[in-house]
This record gives sequence, C-alpha cells and structure tokens, in this order.
Amino acid sequence: MVSIYFLTDFGNNDYYVCAMKGVVRTLCPKAEIIEITNNVRKFNVKHGSFILWQALRWIEKESIVLGVIDPGVGTARDPIIVKSRDYTFVGPDNGLFYPSIQESEFDLYKIDLKGTELIHRRTGTFDGRDIFAPIAAMLACGKSPDELGFRKKSMEVIDIWKVKLGENFIEGEVMNIDRFGNIMTNISWENVKSNHAIVNIRRLSAKAFKSSSYSGKGLLMIKGSTELLELSLAKGSAADFLEADVGDNMRLDWR
Amino acid sequence: MVSIYFLTDFGNNDYYVCAMKGVVRTLCPKAEIIEITNNVRKFNVKHGSFILWQALRWIEKESIVLGVIDPGVGTARDPIIVKSRDYTFVGPDNGLFYPSIQESEFDLYKIDLKGTELIHRRTGTFDGRDIFAPIAAMLACGKSPDELGFRKKSMEVIDIWKVKLGENFIEGEVMNIDRFGNIMTNISWENVKSNHAIVNIRRLSAKAFKSSSYSGKGLLMIKGSTELLELSLAKGSAADFLEADVGDNMRLDWR
Amino acid sequence: MVSIYFLTDFGNNDYYVCAMKGVVRTLCPKAEIIEITNNVRKFNVKHGSFILWQALRWIEKESIVLGVIDPGVGTARDPIIVKSRDYTFVGPDNGLFYPSIQESEFDLYKIDLKGTELIHRRTGTFDGRDIFAPIAAMLACGKSPDELGFRKKSMEVIDIWKVKLGENFIEGEVMNIDRFGNIMTNISWENVKSNHAIVNIRRLSAKAFKSSSYSGKGLLMIKGSTELLELSLAKGSAADFLEADVGDNMRLDWR
Repeated sequence: MVSIYFLTDFGNNDYYVCAMKGVVRTLCPKAEIIEITNNVRKFNVKHGSFILWQALRWIEKESIVLGVIDPGVGTARDPIIVKSRDYTFVGPDNGLFYPSIQESEFDLYKIDLKGTELIHRRTGTFDGRDIFAPIAAMLACGKSPDELGFRKKSMEVIDIWKVKLGENFIEGEVMNIDRFGNIMTNISWENVKSNHAIVNIRRLSAKAFKSSSYSGKGLLMIKGSTELLELSLAKGSAADFLEADVGDNMRLDWR
Repeated sequence: MVSIYFLTDFGNNDYYVCAMKGVVRTLCPKAEIIEITNNVRKFNVKHGSFILWQALRWIEKESIVLGVIDPGVGTARDPIIVKSRDYTFVGPDNGLFYPSIQESEFDLYKIDLKGTELIHRRTGTFDGRDIFAPIAAMLACGKSPDELGFRKKSMEVIDIWKVKLGENFIEGEVMNIDRFGNIMTNISWENVKSNHAIVNIRRLSAKAFKSSSYSGKGLLMIKGSTELLELSLAKGSAADFLEADVGDNMRLDWR
Repeated sequence: MVSIYFLTDFGNNDYYVCAMKGVVRTLCPKAEIIEITNNVRKFNVKHGSFILWQALRWIEKESIVLGVIDPGVGTARDPIIVKSRDYTFVGPDNGLFYPSIQESEFDLYKIDLKGTELIHRRTGTFDGRDIFAPIAAMLACGKSPDELGFRKKSMEVIDIWKVKLGENFIEGEVMNIDRFGNIMTNISWENVKSNHAIVNIRRLSAKAFKSSSYSGKGLLMIKGSTELLELSLAKGSAADFLEADVGDNMRLDWR
C-alpha cells in the first residue's frame, strides 16, 4: 500500500485539495493519501521546500510526494518526476524538491504529457489536478517513471542552506515560524558556538541563551527537532517578540 | 471500498468532525473518509453548494457525499438521501446538493427516522452526528436508500447559475474567494465576450484583461479550472483589491 | 484495523503532525490515522482534555488516542499509557486524559524508554514524534502496555467539572468556543434550573432564555450535543457578544 504525501499552498478551504484526492482515488484507489500540509506560505516555494525537508526523514520509505507549490502554473516550467533511492517526487520543476534530494543520488524525468495523454486534460490553471495528481496515482499503482517521462539532465535549485559564518557571528535566514511562534532557522545546531548571543532580525536585537528545553526564561536558543537552531520565547511567541517573518535575514553575534 | 466525502461548515478545531468520523468508523469501518472541506462559510448553504459542485466531477464514482451545512438543525427541514447515477448524497434538505444533481436524473428520499431507529439517537442540535453520519455509514456498508427512507417528490433548490446577460454587460455573483484571493464567479467562461472589461463589485470598478495564465499584469480575467470566469490579480489578491466577498453581486461591462 | 486518533496543539501548518503520521506508518502501516483536531489552544491541556472528552464517546471502541498537548516537553513529566476498557491513551502525564477515564476503571503505565529503546530516539523537544507516536504504533500493531512500560500508581488530574451550585445561581467555566461562536460550558444541562437566567462573564451580563434549537431569538441556553449548557446567539456569535474566551469563569443567576 503506497502512500502519497500532499504538500501544497492551496489551503483546506477550497475544492483544490479534494479535486486532487478524487483524481488519485479514481486512478489508484489503493493509494493512501496523507497531508504534509496544504498551508505552505502562498507561492513560497522555498518555504515549502523547507517544510518538506523537515518532514521527509520521518515519512515511510517508498512513498510518493505530490508537491504543488506552483506560482508558475501555466508557464513553461517542466512537470517533473524525481526518483531518489527512498522516495519519488512529482510536481513542477521549481526547486521545491531540491533540498530533499540534494544529498542523495536521484534520477530526474520530465513528464511526457503527450505520451501519458495528460495533455488533453490540461486546463492550464490547475496542473496539480490535471498533471501531477494523475502522475502520482499512476506511480502509486505501479507505473515506472520511465513509462511516464523522459530523462532530464538538470533541475531548478533552491539553496536553503546559505549561511555566512564569521569569527564572532553567523548570518542565516528565518525558514519557518511554527504555531507556537518558535522561529526555525537554517543554521545548523553545530554552528551555534556560544551559550549566549545577540540575535538581530530586521531592526530588533535581543539577547538569547542556550537552553535544552522550551521551559527556560526569556529568549532561548534551542536545538530544534530537526537539529537546526530554533529561537523560542518561554511562554510567548519569539516571532512576535522579534517581529520576525519567514524569509527574514538574521544575524547572531556571539558574546 | 466506498468513500464518504465530508462537506461541512464545522471547521477543524472542534469535536464535531471527529464525532462524525467516529460514528462512521463504528458503523462501517471499511468506509474511507475524505474531507472536501469543513470550512464552508458559516451557515452559507449556497457557498457549500458551489464548493461541492466544483469538487464533485473529480470525485470517484460510487462515492457518498455527507454534506452538513445545516443552519436549520432542530427545525422541520427533512433529512434526505439523493441518489444520482454516480453519487449518493446525505444531508439536510436545504438546496446544498441541488447544483450537483440538477443536470442528471436522481431519486430523492426522506430519511425514515423511525424505521432506522435514529429517532432515539437524535439530540436536536447535531443531526450531522446523530442522523447523517449513521445514514452515510449504512449506505457505505450496503444498505439501499429504499431501506432507509421513503420516496419524496421535491427538494429545496438553490440556483447558483443566475446571471443577467445584456448586450454590453453581464451580471453575476462572487461564489468563492480562494486562498490566493482569486475571485470565482458564477459566470460561464463562454459568456466572456471580450478581451477586456470594467469589473464592478460594490462601489469599486477596475479594468480587467483576459489572460491564459495567472502570470499576467494587473487584474486578469482567467478561465478558471472549473470553466468559470475567475478574477485574479497578478502577484496579489483580487478580492482585497476589489474589496469583494462571497455573495457579492458583480457586473462586467465589455469594452 | 486499529485507529489512532490524533489530538494535538501543533496546528496543520508545520511538519509536526506529518512527522508523527510518518512514524506511525513506518512502524505500523496498517493503523488508520484519524485527526480529532490539531488545533487545541496552544499549551492548553485543559482545553484539549475537554475536546477529547466530547469526542471520545463517538470514537469506535478499541481505538488508540495519541494526545500530545505537551507544554512540559523536555521536563520530567512521565510519558504514559492509560488503558481503559474501551480505549488506550498515549501521551504525557499532565491530566489530558483524566476527564476521559475518570469514570471508568483503567490501568496506568509509565513508558519504559530504556526497554523500548526509544531513549536513543529522543531529542528532547519533540516527544510526540520520538516517543508517543512510536508507542501508539507499537500498540496498534499488537504490543501490550505491559511490554512497553511499568505499572504506575497515580496520574496527574485535571478536574474540568468544577462548578459552584448555589440556591439561585451556578458558577462554571467556558470550556470551548466553537466555530459558530457558541459557548460550551462545563455546566451539566440537568443543573439548568430555570427557563431564563442572567449570564455573567467577565464584566458583561446578559439575559438568556432556554431554547430547544439554535433558531430562537437573542441569547439562548441550549442543551448542547454533549448534554452540557451551551450559550448561543441566534444568527451571531455568543462569544463575541459576551466577549468570552476559553477559560473564563461565568455565573448564571436564575430569574
């Protein structure tokens, strides 16, 4: 029983996600549909790529990821299949899958719309329903990527790991803000070189202290559950406190 | 394996949807439960009927739709089953299912609360849990509508397709606003007679241009994914730009 | 086919719930995962315990409840399994499960991290993924609580039923506010002794009248779907009208 994990920015209010589910269930009733989230920030491929990277290591092997954050729908970007050793990814070629496969070997395919006859289904405004969900369903029911596309040489890249490491500072980026207001960064925990730091985001600066749990005092530097630096405010929202948002640059000065 | 598709205005925060799922799983464990959405606008049967109409053509045949947008719970409206060739609908008789079946033949039943013994379960404030979920579960596990109700002659009607077509204009309605701020209308794409128009919603007017994708410039008229006119603002929210909301009347003047 | 019902305050935007689902599907693919809600008020164990109490009686017997509202993650509270006649609960020992089992017999276990080898998995900031999801999966696939933990004598208690019953009044608490703005209280319907009352919440007071359905006029006292007093405003939000929030104390003076 293969699982198809959905990752979109469609939200859960409209008919979009249901249409994709219905397409999957029509073409491959035995596939299990599981939602990573449909609430990726609108059009924010980088945000989606980070959420996917966080989730992926916990997803059972052999699963298919149907990832549709697709600001370029209706334009010329390729529809692709990426096959790594453990997972298969289906979606637009815009970098969404790159952080999840950049450290493994993978095979890359451009979906053959004519060969799969999906070209007749395509309306131009909803490839998630017209192209990507059918392809994911066909993969779940046994088709191989070779039957659904052609080999392709290169894919779009999103580098979520860009940091600047100085002697007394590190610069990184706010990758996500969770429901509790915790700030997930792209700074690897092993690069946190001190027990205290001045955190600078936008125009605000604040002292932060290393803590091994969320139950400390003030602004905390925590080893997050995916081994990245996380900023957390005891009994409050670090994001509100620092007026931080996804995509913000940040700097930590070690003290 | 029959699917039961949930459509409600209960949201996903309270115990309501879970109670309905638990009832289904208790009575018919093999049914698959899939959510269309639980975020239909509160009490807005017309909004729900539009979302359902959009979703339905993508839902696998033989599925059951459990639709509970039910502002009249506790009053005298009938609990009904509607059986079309491809789908079975269960919910209150308030027009919710009408747009989804108005073009097909269908059989209509009033649920027999005494015959099904559901009358003993009914608390009066939550028919979704007490009546409609059990009936959907019984249908999924093989009961026929004839065993669960009596034939009924007429049902409530919601006409979502009311438009006024003039020589140089068309009047319609805002049916949904999606997560991206796109405005879904009830105007069929084939009635879009010009490449540009003045859009009038409430007190605002704005020029709009036909576009084949979301990546144009300014306010766009798009052939939406369900073949209706959709208004979209390139890199922004058309709904915010036009201060439009679900239920608003709108007029397009062709220029 | 055993169901695992998720109850968390993680929201549906981040990778947290998906990570827990992936862990369950990796360890016990045949388990069905169903969401009660992931939108319990942040850190609010009492709120979660009320939602669970409401939902539980509708959940099919033999199910497992994976309940992770866990403000104390990383501190010394025990990870527990609670086994009642009909359900098995897995989560932190903080009172979350108490209202759901306080009227039945139950066996209580402290999860044996060393025995289950989960101690090697534990990161300290996400026990839902590292401890509770794996334990729920093992239970779903046939392990007994005795294999996963040691007997424990007492558990944390949350008493959600504290009310003060006077001759002409009753004092209780706002337990939940639903999507419609209905106010769920902890006041049993049988304690509603009059057809009208003055409701006092914070600084506001308002007259309320008994009604058997939501379609009355003004502020209504309704026998809610879990047999508790519910305050509802006809065609409006009682919570907005009374400026009430979860956790507020309230008093009804019978008139």
